[in-house]
Amino acid sequence: MSARDLRLAVITLSAHVPDLADQDGWAEALRLRDLVHGLRDGGYAIAGVLGADALLPDKLAALAPDVLIVDAESGARDAIEHVVWATRDAPRPIVLFTEEHDPAHMREAVAAGVVAYVVAGLAPERVRPVIDVAIARFEHEQGLRRELAKAKGQLAERVVVDRAKALLMQRHGLAEPQAYARLRKTAMNQGLTIHEIARRLLDVADLLG
Amino acid sequence: MSARDLRLAVITLSAHVPDLADQDGWAEALRLRDLVHGLRDGGYAIAGVLGADALLPDKLAALAPDVLIVDAESGARDAIEHVVWATRDAPRPIVLFTEEHDPAHMREAVAAGVVAYVVAGLAPERVRPVIDVAIARFEHEQGLRRELAKAKGQLAERVVVDRAKALLMQRHGLAEPQAYARLRKTAMNQGLTIHEIARRLLDVADLLG
Repeated sequence: MSARDLRLAVITLSAHVPDLADQDGWAEALRLRDLVHGLRDGGYAIAGVLGADALLPDKLAALAPDVLIVDAESGARDAIEHVVWATRDAPRPIVLFTEEHDPAHMREAVAAGVVAYVVAGLAPERVRPVIDVAIARFEHEQGLRRELAKAKGQLAERVVVDRAKALLMQRHGLAEPQAYARLRKTAMNQGLTIHEIARRLLDVADLLG
Repeated sequence: MSARDLRLAVITLSAHVPDLADQDGWAEALRLRDLVHGLRDGGYAIAGVLGADALLPDKLAALAPDVLIVDAESGARDAIEHVVWATRDAPRPIVLFTEEHDPAHMREAVAAGVVAYVVAGLAPERVRPVIDVAIARFEHEQGLRRELAKAKGQLAERVVVDRAKALLMQRHGLAEPQAYARLRKTAMNQGLTIHEIARRLLDVADLLG
């Protein structure tokens, strides 16, 4: 994918329109402008500039950007966590742009789920590899997470099937292979998985006491 | 941890002593020298400069560096994989320094286990955040891997315990709770886990047929 094919959403943790009397607010707004222009000059499409507010999940769902860029100068930990939370249904790589390197802040951001961290003023031609690596590492980690979810799911299913098998063995005095065969046959007859049949059997057994 | 506390091992994928007639080899050797000097100037301790050869695992075990820096100009995929393989017993963050950004090469490196990727010529003050992020992300991913190994281990143990339980139920006509209680009692008496007792029971049952 070339830079041109990537759509970025830029998320600012400060107010969009600064109070004219607030020097810090002005500085933040100008820095945000520089960041957006720099990314645009680097060939990226900016899908939108968003605040880290309660509407963020909906806005992200509508924009469906490839990568989130967080302008995190004033970034408190909960603001970063809010951004990560806003992507929980459709996880995306999150790259943090920050003014100064603060190791403690960086570790918190990584723990919260940020995949890359750029200290401000990086030359535009150097941003590209950072974003590419962020995407690659994000995909790598999503692979690990899928594997973890699968292993946990298998474990949970096994617990249910084993409880159902034990129930059949006890109630009907069956050996384990026969109990399993009975579950399997019922599942096939009803077009369900063994786990689904086991789940239903346990639900019914709980009802009947 | 300050830069000064981190010990880096630099791994070169090319020959240490270049053939005097080989222009490319000379260029690589000079680049490696610049990389090592740059890192030293950045305040890092260089634990050693190593070739990616068969002795690498032993050398890394002896040096126990905090981070591996791979000078990957001539980096074929198998060379990177060799470095990752060499750290399998004591995984460490691996940062790749490369001359040019090659997205396909970068994705291969990330898939092989590289956590960060630096395009050559990065100003020394910018290397620090990259290495810090590499360490933080590495630790984050190790956490995920530990969780995955635990879930897979629980699944495998459960399979063994369930097979042992089924064996007891069949052979001795026990209900499931009694079979479990017998395994549990034997494990406690022998100072073993239920999984270990189950494993032994199955081993013996296999022997006896």
